[in-house]
Amino acid sequence: MPQNTDSVRAGPAQRKAIILLSGGMDSATTGAIAREEGYLLYALTVDYGQRHYRELEAAKRVAEFLGVAEHIILKVDLTAFGKSALTDTIDVPKDRPIAEMPKEIPITYVPARNTVLLSLALAYAEARGAWDIFVGANAVDYSGYPDCRPEFISAFETMANLATKAGVEGTGRFRIHAPLLRLSKAEIIHRGLALGMNYGLTHTCYDPTPDGRACGRCDACQLRKKGFLEAGVPDPIPYAE
Amino acid sequence: MPQNTDSVRAGPAQRKAIILLSGGMDSATTGAIAREEGYLLYALTVDYGQRHYRELEAAKRVAEFLGVAEHIILKVDLTAFGKSALTDTIDVPKDRPIAEMPKEIPITYVPARNTVLLSLALAYAEARGAWDIFVGANAVDYSGYPDCRPEFISAFETMANLATKAGVEGTGRFRIHAPLLRLSKAEIIHRGLALGMNYGLTHTCYDPTPDGRACGRCDACQLRKKGFLEAGVPDPIPYAE
Repeated sequence: MPQNTDSVRAGPAQRKAIILLSGGMDSATTGAIAREEGYLLYALTVDYGQRHYRELEAAKRVAEFLGVAEHIILKVDLTAFGKSALTDTIDVPKDRPIAEMPKEIPITYVPARNTVLLSLALAYAEARGAWDIFVGANAVDYSGYPDCRPEFISAFETMANLATKAGVEGTGRFRIHAPLLRLSKAEIIHRGLALGMNYGLTHTCYDPTPDGRACGRCDACQLRKKGFLEAGVPDPIPYAE
Repeated sequence: MPQNTDSVRAGPAQRKAIILLSGGMDSATTGAIAREEGYLLYALTVDYGQRHYRELEAAKRVAEFLGVAEHIILKVDLTAFGKSALTDTIDVPKDRPIAEMPKEIPITYVPARNTVLLSLALAYAEARGAWDIFVGANAVDYSGYPDCRPEFISAFETMANLATKAGVEGTGRFRIHAPLLRLSKAEIIHRGLALGMNYGLTHTCYDPTPDGRACGRCDACQLRKKGFLEAGVPDPIPYAE
């Protein structure tokens, strides 16, 4: 009964959790799961030089929808390092067959992104007295990203408990929760809808049109559309094509 | 002969290394060690909301002195999280006896700072094709900081090799070098001077005077002064008292 043990450890006050919110479907669903588990949510959105401010706007909408206690948007300009279609000037691939995506590490991979995001979440957690960090990492649809694998999440958790004053003083243990790790996109959608998530608030596209519609052709759009198709429910957002 | 093995593995091109430069003595010495070992240096300075821009100016002077190939100054506003005398509005302790410092985790501890700094260095390393990251972490004078301990450095290295495209593709292995880990301040000074480091370029004080002199009374100043005293060499910087 880990759930009960945790409640006893934390005492009568509501347990706090940090949720990494990108504005996408996965982090929104993860936030809904954390809320369902009874945590008081502290949302962190890292603006690492993404191409579109629309992702940040979506994160704000989702944070409000989840009723978070605090939402910090932190600018960390990873474009200084370059080497990704999401932060550099390389073109985002379009119309690439889905079957080809997971076999390679995508050009949209941002070097050490989840390491950077989780490190910032850890700093935030320690400052707020939270022991739990929720991240929407997913090993199924994004199997090409090394920092979405269970062994990475586990190694980060080990490191986190050696890195911090809180971890060293032994008053608790940091836990990295990645509840979507082994779910398909369709399963994620079903889980989120069951928790009342409104996916119309989220943003997925790597390359939206000037009026804010999703392109429908980048890897992210294709995976999203396939997810809704397989889930058998309509996608509430408009697409350019 | 690890030195020889490395040279063979990297081929004829000069091996690249990321060096985390704060502007202080430890990172400057670490940079001098990395240069001595033959690496082409890429310096990263993280402006995490330190109280004084003088630390950043010192980092620029040290980077130039070391002849780095590139110097990136990245702003990451950790003041958003608070909870440290270095990033929050808590007063920096003055005249605290040195004997009392290592027994507690100092108020100047920044939550998860080295985790954040090393994560950014890892992103930079992957983007530049570097396998080696140098950090001036020291477990002797700063034993109160959990993220300056050898077990933390080791856990970070393990995590780093699971986190990255480069690590997963198996073309190399990231290594975190913390050459000062077990050196006293006096030993660090002797090492640096032997490598030609000019400590007049560095900045240490947590709370300098308006005209830029070190206060001489904060923990950092006291440890620096004690280090030069024990090393038996003069400290080239001016102090207010």
